[in-house]
Amino acid sequence: MTGFVDRHVGTDATDQRSMLAAVDPGLASLDALVERAVPAAVLHADADPLASVLPAPVDERETLAELAALAGANRVRRSFLGMGYHGTITPAAIRRGILEAPGWYTAYTPYQPEISQGRLEALLNFQTMVADLTGLATANASMLDEGTAVVEGMLLARRAARPSEPTDVFLVDADALPQTRALLAHRAEAVGIEVVELPLADTVPEDLPPAFGVLVQQPGASGRLWDPSAVADAVHARGGLVVVAADLLALTIVRAPGELGADVAVGTTQRFGVPLGYGGPHAGYMSVRAGLERQLPGRLVGVSKDADGDPAYRLSLQTREQHIRREKATSNICTAQVLLAVVASMYAVYHGPDGLARIACAVHDRTVRLARALGDAVVHRSVFDTLAVRLPGRAAAAGAAAAERDLLLWLVDDDTLQVTLDETTTDAEVDLLAEILTAHGAAPAADGTPDVGIPDALRRTSDFLTHPVFRTHRSETSLVRYMRTLEDKDYALDRGMIPLGSCTMKLNSAIEMTPVTWPAFGDLHPFAPPQDAAGTLALVADLERWLADLTGYAAVSLQPNAGSQGELAGLLAVREFHRSRGDAGRTVCLIPSSAHGTNAASAVLAGLRVVVVACDETGSIDLDDLRAKVAEHADDLAAIMVTYPSTHGVYEDTIAEVRDLVHAAGGQVYVDGANLNALLGHVRLGDLGDVSHLNLHKTFCIPHGGGGPGVGPVAVREHLAPFLPGHPFDPRADALAGAAPTDDGGPAHRRIVSAAPLGSPLVLPITWAYLRMMGLDGLRHATVSAVLGANYLAARLRDHYPVLYTGEGGLVAHECILDLRPLRAATGITVDDVAKRLIDYGFHAPTVSFPVAGTLMVEPTESEDLAELDRFVDAMIAIRAEADAVAEGRWPSDDNPLVNAPHTASSVVTDWTHPYPRDVAVFPALGQRGRKYWPPVRRVDQAYGDRNLVCACPPPEAFA
Amino acid sequence: MTGFVDRHVGTDATDQRSMLAAVDPGLASLDALVERAVPAAVLHADADPLASVLPAPVDERETLAELAALAGANRVRRSFLGMGYHGTITPAAIRRGILEAPGWYTAYTPYQPEISQGRLEALLNFQTMVADLTGLATANASMLDEGTAVVEGMLLARRAARPSEPTDVFLVDADALPQTRALLAHRAEAVGIEVVELPLADTVPEDLPPAFGVLVQQPGASGRLWDPSAVADAVHARGGLVVVAADLLALTIVRAPGELGADVAVGTTQRFGVPLGYGGPHAGYMSVRAGLERQLPGRLVGVSKDADGDPAYRLSLQTREQHIRREKATSNICTAQVLLAVVASMYAVYHGPDGLARIACAVHDRTVRLARALGDAVVHRSVFDTLAVRLPGRAAAAGAAAAERDLLLWLVDDDTLQVTLDETTTDAEVDLLAEILTAHGAAPAADGTPDVGIPDALRRTSDFLTHPVFRTHRSETSLVRYMRTLEDKDYALDRGMIPLGSCTMKLNSAIEMTPVTWPAFGDLHPFAPPQDAAGTLALVADLERWLADLTGYAAVSLQPNAGSQGELAGLLAVREFHRSRGDAGRTVCLIPSSAHGTNAASAVLAGLRVVVVACDETGSIDLDDLRAKVAEHADDLAAIMVTYPSTHGVYEDTIAEVRDLVHAAGGQVYVDGANLNALLGHVRLGDLGDVSHLNLHKTFCIPHGGGGPGVGPVAVREHLAPFLPGHPFDPRADALAGAAPTDDGGPAHRRIVSAAPLGSPLVLPITWAYLRMMGLDGLRHATVSAVLGANYLAARLRDHYPVLYTGEGGLVAHECILDLRPLRAATGITVDDVAKRLIDYGFHAPTVSFPVAGTLMVEPTESEDLAELDRFVDAMIAIRAEADAVAEGRWPSDDNPLVNAPHTASSVVTDWTHPYPRDVAVFPALGQRGRKYWPPVRRVDQAYGDRNLVCACPPPEAFA
Repeated sequence: MTGFVDRHVGTDATDQRSMLAAVDPGLASLDALVERAVPAAVLHADADPLASVLPAPVDERETLAELAALAGANRVRRSFLGMGYHGTITPAAIRRGILEAPGWYTAYTPYQPEISQGRLEALLNFQTMVADLTGLATANASMLDEGTAVVEGMLLARRAARPSEPTDVFLVDADALPQTRALLAHRAEAVGIEVVELPLADTVPEDLPPAFGVLVQQPGASGRLWDPSAVADAVHARGGLVVVAADLLALTIVRAPGELGADVAVGTTQRFGVPLGYGGPHAGYMSVRAGLERQLPGRLVGVSKDADGDPAYRLSLQTREQHIRREKATSNICTAQVLLAVVASMYAVYHGPDGLARIACAVHDRTVRLARALGDAVVHRSVFDTLAVRLPGRAAAAGAAAAERDLLLWLVDDDTLQVTLDETTTDAEVDLLAEILTAHGAAPAADGTPDVGIPDALRRTSDFLTHPVFRTHRSETSLVRYMRTLEDKDYALDRGMIPLGSCTMKLNSAIEMTPVTWPAFGDLHPFAPPQDAAGTLALVADLERWLADLTGYAAVSLQPNAGSQGELAGLLAVREFHRSRGDAGRTVCLIPSSAHGTNAASAVLAGLRVVVVACDETGSIDLDDLRAKVAEHADDLAAIMVTYPSTHGVYEDTIAEVRDLVHAAGGQVYVDGANLNALLGHVRLGDLGDVSHLNLHKTFCIPHGGGGPGVGPVAVREHLAPFLPGHPFDPRADALAGAAPTDDGGPAHRRIVSAAPLGSPLVLPITWAYLRMMGLDGLRHATVSAVLGANYLAARLRDHYPVLYTGEGGLVAHECILDLRPLRAATGITVDDVAKRLIDYGFHAPTVSFPVAGTLMVEPTESEDLAELDRFVDAMIAIRAEADAVAEGRWPSDDNPLVNAPHTASSVVTDWTHPYPRDVAVFPALGQRGRKYWPPVRRVDQAYGDRNLVCACPPPEAFA
Repeated sequence: MTGFVDRHVGTDATDQRSMLAAVDPGLASLDALVERAVPAAVLHADADPLASVLPAPVDERETLAELAALAGANRVRRSFLGMGYHGTITPAAIRRGILEAPGWYTAYTPYQPEISQGRLEALLNFQTMVADLTGLATANASMLDEGTAVVEGMLLARRAARPSEPTDVFLVDADALPQTRALLAHRAEAVGIEVVELPLADTVPEDLPPAFGVLVQQPGASGRLWDPSAVADAVHARGGLVVVAADLLALTIVRAPGELGADVAVGTTQRFGVPLGYGGPHAGYMSVRAGLERQLPGRLVGVSKDADGDPAYRLSLQTREQHIRREKATSNICTAQVLLAVVASMYAVYHGPDGLARIACAVHDRTVRLARALGDAVVHRSVFDTLAVRLPGRAAAAGAAAAERDLLLWLVDDDTLQVTLDETTTDAEVDLLAEILTAHGAAPAADGTPDVGIPDALRRTSDFLTHPVFRTHRSETSLVRYMRTLEDKDYALDRGMIPLGSCTMKLNSAIEMTPVTWPAFGDLHPFAPPQDAAGTLALVADLERWLADLTGYAAVSLQPNAGSQGELAGLLAVREFHRSRGDAGRTVCLIPSSAHGTNAASAVLAGLRVVVVACDETGSIDLDDLRAKVAEHADDLAAIMVTYPSTHGVYEDTIAEVRDLVHAAGGQVYVDGANLNALLGHVRLGDLGDVSHLNLHKTFCIPHGGGGPGVGPVAVREHLAPFLPGHPFDPRADALAGAAPTDDGGPAHRRIVSAAPLGSPLVLPITWAYLRMMGLDGLRHATVSAVLGANYLAARLRDHYPVLYTGEGGLVAHECILDLRPLRAATGITVDDVAKRLIDYGFHAPTVSFPVAGTLMVEPTESEDLAELDRFVDAMIAIRAEADAVAEGRWPSDDNPLVNAPHTASSVVTDWTHPYPRDVAVFPALGQRGRKYWPPVRRVDQAYGDRNLVCACPPPEAFA
């Protein structure tokens, strides 16, 4: 094993010996631990490093050298390709202060608002920015990409519309982005929506067919700007909703969708400083008019108040989320693109409204200048940044000539090219473009000044970004301090352990993160010629092979850009597999009652019907109930979705039996890879099931980014491989060679789940580097170290908090559930009180009340060292003692350090009426004085914020 | 002007209009401000951007592209050159966590210990590391480089030795590094020391001539290891001191200097993770045996206690420093290499003693393996990592053959090559080296195993790095948290203003800092062939031209790696200029009483005699006294050293008269460039004087790094250009074309002031980028904005604190001195109380009691925005009100928020007996709750620490 393994794994051999002894003095070795914990039936005993396709590991220096070689194999030419992806300048201060700052990228989703006020503020800025620019009331934070945001817009329209006559029709602008149209088609079909494409700008509104909604792209894929108000009126008149996909930069000088009749606006914020990255990750957006805010999918940041009545941010309306609503969920979106949304929001904070408009004007002015040089060859006169150029019969030749000069243009057809400008375009490039295009037939119009640009009626006159935060941080010094101030409010992995069960908050090493901000990976347009992306494509090919090999599957697709999308892709593959065999009736998906909510939501969105299977008192699948359900659905069983180790953190020994039962009934087995960190190198998902999604942001070191990006590859056995995701612009010509046609006989590329062909390639070097440095032995060691850590915590804490579930050998897997219900019964102290009190002790709480209400699920991962594990144990034991003091009446049940937690610095310097001293409030543990984390707010009132929904930046006076 | 100017300058046009009005409603424009503030006699009125050699500025993106092109013009081959510079692996976590982290690199020198505990701890780790490895009692933190550290060792030996007979002789090992020997020769000559070089390893100790000290290099430049104990005994016997220059990595497995008779150990810590950087910056080191600690030059971190009796770190023995002792100073070292010392210390923290020894063993084992392949061609058998290889007549050919294969070897002479291995050397490279060298005449010895390596008698057996800090942070997760914990203790520019007078703490923009960690700049050995460094050399040439042009001088040398070294180089040039004209008697250097202490110290070390010139009550040079002193020293006047604007922050209108007076008497005028930020683009130093040094870490955006690196180029008029620094291995063949021979007829390259030919090239891209993005107009705007900021503060504060000095027009320059002596007289509150109270308000204190005791000198720089300036003003006014409350008896004079400042979090949560509330203690200002900086300790007891000197890590129990 390389030295990196010792850097990644927090405990060394000496630590591990003492930990094994604490778990059970009879455990002589790590091997013995694995043998006792993992059922022999599933153990991949013959895992042979030599047989692995994963190469022998190399050290950090060599890994970086290999990555540099891959980067060098890319060729970044200047992109004028557009199609929803634009060159942009990431201000260096934001790159360094956010994208390269562990305090930002190692944070978790802000479910614990008290330790997340910094990124919540940044996300509130993001929502304010989107709402302002789109002219709508409320935006969420954030969507995965523009394409899936449009799908969510369609789904929102279906559930919120009140059509005057029943209809499953959704109208789509034929001038919408091609990948968006493909996504809509694929996703609509699964849920019974009929998509009707029309050239909306050229259609008489009164002639539109009845529909529950319509999508307008503004500007269109062709660059055309038009006023969709009449279309909106016509759709509204019949009770439908209007979804507008709009370019955010254009909206600084073009009338907002909200002013043109939109109910919903969607799009991407990529061009606000987020690198192209060969397609992602970027933050999509969605905003809605007043009245629809409770229909928003995904995460919505809102303003509430804390226990002292001060303003405090948190995620609003979480009851809408799929993890609560399960099969009634209307969206399966879970992970957002927080880190990228933060970048986009900071870009707006830094430039401010004037700066953004200046950028937009510069882009537009250059576009107009180019149009003047091209005269009548310009197809659309009403444009922002994109020109469709008619060069009859010579479009391909012109494109080739431009490519020769390192300028990439978009070829529409034999007669038409498109050129999209952005803030990186120079005057010299405009001149060169004009030269090339005029050489291929374009010519200035006779009068020299054709009327090209934004029509007066579409020019924006309304204000935006009026909040002071967008007008204050104009100097780099001020911006740097603002970013630091926000970062300091938050608790991320660079401060201490985040022992979140089911989330695998392991080390995101600097070496893994380094290539993410290399321009050779960052500046590639997703639709650039494949030969320009040779390095990235080689890296992707490595990863697909390595992940398939590690999981024992035949094929992997990296396209899904979140775990939820991986699930969806996997279930869609199952659905199509059945249909391809004439088994269209197989639509039932069995899901254990303990499953993560996303499972059920994804099943619904894949057109499946959820049937719940009971779990027994140990948290395992109730085999009797399963048998009954399988029998009941023998004819229509599509699949079962299980998680292994179970959501309860246990290696169930019945997994093989479950698999065989379902297979016998003709169903497919979907194994959720959420808990792969308990298996990697020891158990192969492909031995347990037919299809899985992995979470590269859990098991494979992509940081959680404060709530995203996630990457959720889908992995399948051979028979499902033909049904993996495709893409209209997939750069691998051979990628779909074995792919089946779609259900309706269409090409495989229609099977698209993310806007970009490879999802989020910019963060894939992280996983590549991790695997390259660990090797199979290192991964195996990490897995067992993680399992040891969880069992150590369970062993040390079980006398203070019951451990809810264990496997046959009395062991847990990589996480353990501490049952706090007895504590509550005995003392009145709730699981929330303990979670918040942990903040005072300097910890991020474990997962609260999932999968079992009233419990904490703790997953230490392999990266924590023994000192940190012990610090956590000591804190939990001390908290137990505090709860006992309440039970004993030493502190009142309504005024003690637990119910009042967390304590801010402000709260201990003012009048103090509590029956415990101030230092017990804020310095309960030894050693905190050197590394105290101060929560910026006290306990946040969730209900108040949901009742009084405010999802934009509050005025400064609110903090007076 | 580019957009960058608006990002760099904190105030915009609107702000500046209101600031001008606050200064004087009659000031209509920035031009008017300049005209009123700056005497017409010195204004460079015709500054014409078009005539400037500084090119028209470009934006951030283009600047980065040009820097990438320069980087691309470098060619990094594998270095086996050794000679004190070694390949090393900077752990990615340390690169990201320290070198790329604004919280570390924008911090200032830890003169205010309460807000510097993080970097003080890191430096204490550094000292402990050095002391442990060298086997000596006490180390400082840090020296500029190995060469100057040896010079300091020689000077220390001279003052601390008690020779049995008077002697000016210092013995030098002929096997010392060539640049070290050159430096010693140059520096010794100026101060009357006679250097005698001897092949010490081959000299009978009893035959050594009388000397006050000796330098031994271990291993020698030839790679040879030997036991200097007998030499040490012989020197000691006659009262001399033994200085050993030792390789720190070798010392993990080779006996420590302290165990072999050394009184002083010196060297570099570069190979502990600090990039080669074409020569610097790196941290040198020095340690001494017990009894000599008060002789240490430079900065020494020590342990003291705070007002609550808790351990606290701070700089010890500051009274030794040149800024106090002035002409009695024994060293002019001021800036250290803090940032690099921190990197080296973290490298030791991360690897620990075992890891370091493992690295050393791996290097040594490969060296032995290579030696075996080369047999009798290996010259020295007792080696660590370097082999001298005898290839009679074929050395050059072998070197060329290796270079062909991208391996750079050190050519000693026609018959001898040297190969130095390091932690980056691979087995494949050893094989390739063996192949090449055997092809040129080397051959394995007959028995195949010549006895090469570390002799048993020289093998280290003693422990080192036994403190827990070197055994705790083995995982990357733990290291990251440790670095964050330390960073969080400190106040740097990323938290708020650091208005230090005379220090110019301006923005260090991310774009400027980006290239610093590019391998193409970082991985170059300083003695690599010049063609390998084409990019860096082009950048250096640009900078030299631009800086010369901006300052109105004829030539610039970038070699001095600190301001103090720039002064020394300038004064040495003056001295040699006079001597070259037969004026050897000109040895008097006039220095105004208000001068920075370093001026006098540098003069002494340049062999000049300091004569102080009085200042009048306005802080300006007393012209009558000057005339008298000039007359008195008409025959022996060498120079005057002045600062402009004056150290008091005033544009003296007598500067031209001073210059002419001194010139008329045959003296040279040295203008200290410390205050160049008040002049750049408006006044040319070259119009005022003959020679200056600049501070790239003040005016030109190189960050202060927590106390270094600094870069202090020396700039001269035409007649002094022949006397600029040279170097034995200067890569510019033509650089010394016009250089004069040295005083004794030696080659110009003997005129060396830093170990590396170009000083600290790795940080020069920062300044290059700044100038490239600002352009002349931008620089002029920055200057006047800085002057406006200082005058704004003076105007707003003068009713609360008298402003001590102003120029003719009632204006200050770029800084202002607030007189707190009246406050003390009225209230008993001292300037220290105010400085510490500012910490409670969230500020770094201005400069305290320099240049005038009892005052604060405030320099806001152009980078602060109006909100931050106002926040500072508000804090100062509020503090004034607090002091008044003390005067009025509302708070006792010995128990009030000022004398008790700063207040820690701990101090407000325990028993509170003070007559003011806790929130007044820690939240005195509005708006702090969102961005509170918490000092980790209370006021540090300076005297206690000096009386009880502890300069290594205290045991953990000290913090119990």
